[in-house]
Amino acid sequence: MPNSSTDYSTSGSSSANSSPQQPSRRQVVAGAAAGTAALAATAAGAPPAGTAPAGAVTAAVSGSDWSTCLTVARAILVRDENDKPLVPRYREVLLGAGLPRSGGTPKKVLIIGAGPAGLTAAHLLRSAGHTVTVIEANGNRVGGRIKTFRSGGHEKSEAPFADPKQHAEAGAMRIPDSHPLVTGLIDSFDLKRRRFHLVDVDGGGRAANRTWIHVNGVRVRRADYAKKPRAVNRSFGVPAKFENTPASQIVRDAFAPVRKKIDGKEGADLVKGWAEVIHEYGHWSMYRFLTEAAKLDVRTVDLIGTVENMTSRLHLAFVHSFIGASLISPGTAFFELPAGTATLVDAMYGRVKDLVRLDRRVTRISHGADGVSVETVSEGRGGTVERETFTGDRAIVTVPFSGLRHIPVQPAMSYGKRRAVTEIHYDAATKVLLEFNLRWWEFEEKDWKEQLDRVRPGLYDAYRLGRAPADGSLLGAHPAVPPGHVPDGQRVHYAACRATARNQPEAAHVFGGGSVTDNANRFMFQPSYPVGGSPGGVVLASYSWADDALKWDSLEDDERYPRALAGMQEVYGQRIEVFYTGVGRTQSWMRDPYAYGEASVLLPGQHTELFPDVRTPEGPLHFAGCHTSIKPAWIEGALESAVRTALEVHSA
Amino acid sequence: MPNSSTDYSTSGSSSANSSPQQPSRRQVVAGAAAGTAALAATAAGAPPAGTAPAGAVTAAVSGSDWSTCLTVARAILVRDENDKPLVPRYREVLLGAGLPRSGGTPKKVLIIGAGPAGLTAAHLLRSAGHTVTVIEANGNRVGGRIKTFRSGGHEKSEAPFADPKQHAEAGAMRIPDSHPLVTGLIDSFDLKRRRFHLVDVDGGGRAANRTWIHVNGVRVRRADYAKKPRAVNRSFGVPAKFENTPASQIVRDAFAPVRKKIDGKEGADLVKGWAEVIHEYGHWSMYRFLTEAAKLDVRTVDLIGTVENMTSRLHLAFVHSFIGASLISPGTAFFELPAGTATLVDAMYGRVKDLVRLDRRVTRISHGADGVSVETVSEGRGGTVERETFTGDRAIVTVPFSGLRHIPVQPAMSYGKRRAVTEIHYDAATKVLLEFNLRWWEFEEKDWKEQLDRVRPGLYDAYRLGRAPADGSLLGAHPAVPPGHVPDGQRVHYAACRATARNQPEAAHVFGGGSVTDNANRFMFQPSYPVGGSPGGVVLASYSWADDALKWDSLEDDERYPRALAGMQEVYGQRIEVFYTGVGRTQSWMRDPYAYGEASVLLPGQHTELFPDVRTPEGPLHFAGCHTSIKPAWIEGALESAVRTALEVHSA
Repeated sequence: MPNSSTDYSTSGSSSANSSPQQPSRRQVVAGAAAGTAALAATAAGAPPAGTAPAGAVTAAVSGSDWSTCLTVARAILVRDENDKPLVPRYREVLLGAGLPRSGGTPKKVLIIGAGPAGLTAAHLLRSAGHTVTVIEANGNRVGGRIKTFRSGGHEKSEAPFADPKQHAEAGAMRIPDSHPLVTGLIDSFDLKRRRFHLVDVDGGGRAANRTWIHVNGVRVRRADYAKKPRAVNRSFGVPAKFENTPASQIVRDAFAPVRKKIDGKEGADLVKGWAEVIHEYGHWSMYRFLTEAAKLDVRTVDLIGTVENMTSRLHLAFVHSFIGASLISPGTAFFELPAGTATLVDAMYGRVKDLVRLDRRVTRISHGADGVSVETVSEGRGGTVERETFTGDRAIVTVPFSGLRHIPVQPAMSYGKRRAVTEIHYDAATKVLLEFNLRWWEFEEKDWKEQLDRVRPGLYDAYRLGRAPADGSLLGAHPAVPPGHVPDGQRVHYAACRATARNQPEAAHVFGGGSVTDNANRFMFQPSYPVGGSPGGVVLASYSWADDALKWDSLEDDERYPRALAGMQEVYGQRIEVFYTGVGRTQSWMRDPYAYGEASVLLPGQHTELFPDVRTPEGPLHFAGCHTSIKPAWIEGALESAVRTALEVHSA
Repeated sequence: MPNSSTDYSTSGSSSANSSPQQPSRRQVVAGAAAGTAALAATAAGAPPAGTAPAGAVTAAVSGSDWSTCLTVARAILVRDENDKPLVPRYREVLLGAGLPRSGGTPKKVLIIGAGPAGLTAAHLLRSAGHTVTVIEANGNRVGGRIKTFRSGGHEKSEAPFADPKQHAEAGAMRIPDSHPLVTGLIDSFDLKRRRFHLVDVDGGGRAANRTWIHVNGVRVRRADYAKKPRAVNRSFGVPAKFENTPASQIVRDAFAPVRKKIDGKEGADLVKGWAEVIHEYGHWSMYRFLTEAAKLDVRTVDLIGTVENMTSRLHLAFVHSFIGASLISPGTAFFELPAGTATLVDAMYGRVKDLVRLDRRVTRISHGADGVSVETVSEGRGGTVERETFTGDRAIVTVPFSGLRHIPVQPAMSYGKRRAVTEIHYDAATKVLLEFNLRWWEFEEKDWKEQLDRVRPGLYDAYRLGRAPADGSLLGAHPAVPPGHVPDGQRVHYAACRATARNQPEAAHVFGGGSVTDNANRFMFQPSYPVGGSPGGVVLASYSWADDALKWDSLEDDERYPRALAGMQEVYGQRIEVFYTGVGRTQSWMRDPYAYGEASVLLPGQHTELFPDVRTPEGPLHFAGCHTSIKPAWIEGALESAVRTALEVHSA
């Protein structure tokens, strides 16, 4: 086993064994008088001249050399070094024949982390004859950032909502049909999947776009906004030329010159097109792109930032959002799993349950020519803390780098890997979910009248005229709300946080989809379907990222629900309060002690400066997880990495 | 009183009463073909041509117009619109005659927040004859981000450490002598202040620079690094030209062309110089400045980022760090208060205690021509939740904007204010403090031998040779460590997290100052002085910002101490464990439910796009707090804002 007293520190010495003497993979920008000077030295081919979009600042320096840009481009497109698509092979391994017969000798493999990457790699490697142990920090569940608030499941949860049939997603909630590995895996498990309605639909399942945009005190349905954006756009004070252009169109127009580099291209040309995007904009923030390349004024940036959910990520890498917008088109369909995304985890876990050791948090990784040693500690929530050491020939580390930062690895990893672990930015994302005993968002006015007058005669009109009491006494007042979930103290909090506006907009009458507001809630989603046997539903009352999310994270869980309800009331009216069961659930991914953030949403420059080092093995250590793909936060990225690392370990 | 049913929402309407129809203060960038085109239109004078530093990208667009840049420059320098220094007048108000006799009529003033800004404004306004109420969310303390872990004080704390004499700072810990208001206030209270040793000193109080730089496995004392930076610099793989330049010098050289715009200037020229800095770089991140203006390669950015604490804030505004570096020079002396910074709060609180209502968290602010109404709720930790409404003629709001985001204000504030509240970036900062029964950092080797052999004979050599047990059994093993503070479960955690390195560097032998490491601890500070009557001390084992801090924030408090100790052990050696009392304290300002972050550390562009709207009154609402100054996180900024808003309210 590795020498546990490896010493890489020497007082005052210059012999740091893991430290490079000269820059290698990461380009030295200094001395490159112009971007092209650095490029000229590369063998992989320079980008065509004159490809900058109109208005782009042609910077005298660049963040990266061309070969690095090609590396990142291939990662975006999931291609090998010859530009050949890897997904067909990955699909074959994942869903067909498994790992090739001609692997290396059977090995003892440790997999750190039982998220989708770890569970999948475990299954593939065991099926190919390797001995696998999966080490998981959580004591009661696997699945990582796939997490459903539900009753039962592999984690045997207590009912999280007043209605035990209800469930809702804390993490992954929608699966794009453009992600072939995850959709294929779901189908291979014979799990039913159905459309997730990112946009609300009518009774026939067609996009209705009746949800609200509520900004600067203006409330308008999305469909009306698309036709007449003027009221909303003027509320931001955009220049006259943008008054009649919907925000989504302004974004598309802003991205268009960059889209030209990739649209309609295939094969090596497509790779080159992406490499050009990375080369030109890899070190740009979205803020810089919108103001300097797209030359948008600050008010228009406010508009698209608010309506198209870009504000909180303006300081992050332009290419992160651009890649997302490019790989998932407006026409992309999304799917969901009827009983929650965690049913996919149940299926993954079922195949490898005997290999998984729960409640084993990794505290140290040692590695050497003779293998890997992984030390762990239990959380000791039951009173006894246990240490256990696992050994193997190789390990697949799926821990987010934000968490790996707190795990000593000895001997130290390469310089590039250590910088990536230290610097890769993880974003915050926070959800606040509220349960209602009836799906009031589907109501028409006549339903409102009927149900409110069931609470007490005349209440419908009282709300409509802004005369209903604002003291919280009507919280959960509908007769079918199960009692006992709103303690008196909470009732006072709800009253104190009640919505500002007393006016009552017309019935939303929407199925699925979600509204956007400039209040702290930001994005709200209704469930796409009823839960069988339940008249109620759980609404994602607030879904926010980055700074928007951190503001929720400053609040204790219980303090979030009154505020989230008030934010919804501001959009949908005070009257929704009568259906609130008093039960909320919330998930702060940044505060999660095993997730350490929502996902690796990179900062400007990190795609070229850090990403290429993220996935390279370090001796017997291999690196998986969505952060090793360019689909952070998506299950597809985790699965790509699972197959990649299973192949690496298998053939080693 | 204001109409509580004010309605600013209208379905589909374009009449948002608070929404501007055209951009005004915030510049419309689109259409400005060149930065100078926008400038030419301003009356305040254009910046001289040809002032860009060598190598700066002269972007075709700018983030702000010239008059806005002047506004920000005056805020930086604390000058009025005629470029006259405001500090002499502020000093006179704060420390001399108080508010002018010729104010308006006596008013009923509500002050939201009992931090240094609120407490100071309360005193000034009451002394001038106004009726003041201070509304504070905390139930047991005032002082905001001045918070000392201590026994007693106005908050009547239980002893936070094993030795009840010990105390340590959760927040503000050092006061620059270049801050005249806070130093003057301290002196006016007859509070003793003494030098805070940011750099460790020798027995005679002279800078010794013997603390460690420990990066890439290289450990070197700061003084040695200053003389021979080669080993450390090469461990980052910097280009040959930087191998022999200390990191601090590289930063100074990088900033030098920008410093030229302000150095040696006075009066209106100095204001113009700062306005030029804002104009050219206000929309730049530090990352962009270092790579594109200073043309540093990525390895050199790694070096200075690690050693000079810039990495975690690379994506934030260049000008934030540049302003800090410029207003606080390397020669700036820092002070501390012997019994903790909170003794300043005790003194501030003592003057206005009768005006402060604790445990009143604001949930809503209504305002109109007839005054202000502030609704509050108690936390109800004792079981009963109370609501209380306060009314007044005017209010001073000192709540951080990150917290104000969750407080409805009706009618809605101006567009600019709402954007500032929504977007102003607040940074994370986290401290982890560990208590030791002896101040081992002051030891020479002979002291180590003596004290370790008191634990058990031969232990000194066992540690030296890397042969001491690594199972946590020696945690707090020194005979003078008070028993009972390390539960068995924690002992296992400490053992699991123990430091990687078993080698033992020589005795630190330092007084005050701090070390830097590239492990997760990042920055460590020893106390500048012994606590009278105590042989031990509390070390700031980890002080980190931004992403570095958020990684600690993902961990529960109790999980941080073993990791913080291990990080210290990596720098100082395993043997420090025998003196650990088992008691730690930690403060995550981003997780604090009343602070909502460490301070407003702005993103690129926010100084010009948002800051000018931060401090403008909204009808009867005035805005104070360090975020309304350009000294975020500094008490001085809070005091400037206290005097400014007291004058505003007094003369209104």
